[in-house]
Amino acid sequence: MFKFPEHQVAGHLALGGKLGPQIDESGRFCKPLQEDERGSREVAFYEALYSTSKVKKQILRFFPVFYGTHITEASDGSGLHPHLVLQDVVSDYLKPCIMDIKIGSRTWYPQASEDYVAKCLRKDRGTTSLSLGFRISGLQIYRGKKSGYWKPDRKQIQKFTADDVRSVLRKFVSSNQLGDSDCKPDSPPACYIYGGFSGIFQQLLELKSWFEDQTDFHFNSCSILLIYDGESEKNGGNPQSTIKLIDFAHVFDGNNVIDHNFLGGLSSLIKFISEASATQLSKPKWLDAPAA
Amino acid sequence: MFKFPEHQVAGHLALGGKLGPQIDESGRFCKPLQEDERGSREVAFYEALYSTSKVKKQILRFFPVFYGTHITEASDGSGLHPHLVLQDVVSDYLKPCIMDIKIGSRTWYPQASEDYVAKCLRKDRGTTSLSLGFRISGLQIYRGKKSGYWKPDRKQIQKFTADDVRSVLRKFVSSNQLGDSDCKPDSPPACYIYGGFSGIFQQLLELKSWFEDQTDFHFNSCSILLIYDGESEKNGGNPQSTIKLIDFAHVFDGNNVIDHNFLGGLSSLIKFISEASATQLSKPKWLDAPAA
Repeated sequence: MFKFPEHQVAGHLALGGKLGPQIDESGRFCKPLQEDERGSREVAFYEALYSTSKVKKQILRFFPVFYGTHITEASDGSGLHPHLVLQDVVSDYLKPCIMDIKIGSRTWYPQASEDYVAKCLRKDRGTTSLSLGFRISGLQIYRGKKSGYWKPDRKQIQKFTADDVRSVLRKFVSSNQLGDSDCKPDSPPACYIYGGFSGIFQQLLELKSWFEDQTDFHFNSCSILLIYDGESEKNGGNPQSTIKLIDFAHVFDGNNVIDHNFLGGLSSLIKFISEASATQLSKPKWLDAPAA
Repeated sequence: MFKFPEHQVAGHLALGGKLGPQIDESGRFCKPLQEDERGSREVAFYEALYSTSKVKKQILRFFPVFYGTHITEASDGSGLHPHLVLQDVVSDYLKPCIMDIKIGSRTWYPQASEDYVAKCLRKDRGTTSLSLGFRISGLQIYRGKKSGYWKPDRKQIQKFTADDVRSVLRKFVSSNQLGDSDCKPDSPPACYIYGGFSGIFQQLLELKSWFEDQTDFHFNSCSILLIYDGESEKNGGNPQSTIKLIDFAHVFDGNNVIDHNFLGGLSSLIKFISEASATQLSKPKWLDAPAA
């Protein structure tokens, strides 16, 4: 009934007998609740998000649908465990191309202990978080039937420089135009993925407008998923470009202050994507490099 | 010829035989160059700002005019010392009301030493920098002939909470409407200071647009001055509301990345000012409290 979510690109994985998320056939994503305050904070966030009339439908679509909590068998065989029941945000995609981007130059929260701050600060300085205001945490890009997905491993991703990030953001939307030779000619044109009326760029701008105003939540260490379908001919060529916010274990009350840390990082990501869109038709470097 | 700038509200003061800025009668502000890399960085920044065609006139007006460097007598009597020669940004004001706001939830720069980071981080967590994305570093508000200026001391300002910041931002524009009884009826109405076509709010939005795009400079530990004239009848009631960026000893090359730290803090300040504008006609608390 439950299975391992093969398109998960970051976070705890339910592999090798470990505790992690599972999906079912009906499009549900079951995420084990962390037993400490992180679990209760994430539930509290989803409940607040749906119970407050402050968050409009137009913004709610940027979050996975929340179906409540449910006690079910844990993936590690340890028995019953409480899970968040969420929408599996990629269940409708044939070949989901996904990027998980952790937003904010600071991933720690102001109330955290000195040790926790030091640990996060080290990671923020060691990745692009501090310099760019965001870091890529995981990704997969569909390159066609022959090559399948490009899914670099965590260690490789953690070492990404600013230039790697630029290159990967270009690759993300260039793969279908410039992938291997079996690539269908009617696969989604790059301009529809980032650009266009309903593309990722426009969605990020909508999200940014909300962050310029909302003072209810501070999204520490939260990610934005960029998703589109790498094989979209069955949808009439619509790549279903979408963004989703995920991971709310460190969301705190905004105390009537905007989330300037998230907004700054999001604005930086938007600038990077506008530049990637402008240069996306140039030949991506990964065509020259051996596959990872 | 040179004298102590009586309207300086923050930074090193040339008082008690110390080294600090001096002004002259022609509207020049002479700031001693710091002898370490901070001095050379500040000169390099002003030179880059004026030499690059990237920064448009519309944005340059938000910076003090830079007249070069000049070797002149130091305020501490130590003899000749190199100085930055800048515009004295308040020389045209009869009763300058000024707020110095250090922008950014992080005031340290990524290249800094561990010790420097720890020192700044302590101060950012101990003030409103971390929580609000900015902190007030100094201010003076003109309250009329009888009461003169309200100019709280540094220790008082360092202790400002989020609510104090809200209150002070309201006071800043309410003083002339609700100050002591000798307040001229034709002194600048609050709505012209933050609001209006050329008010502070509009200027901050213009500056924000620039920060959403510019990737040349990262303004670490830099301040925005908010200025208006508390006695503007000689200017036909025009309070000459203006903003100026100052203090560039920690400005670094942006490396093709936007200054997300400054942008986040600036966006938060804009939100605070929009709220202060909306509530500025309510009675400010300082009328109930004893003067500082």
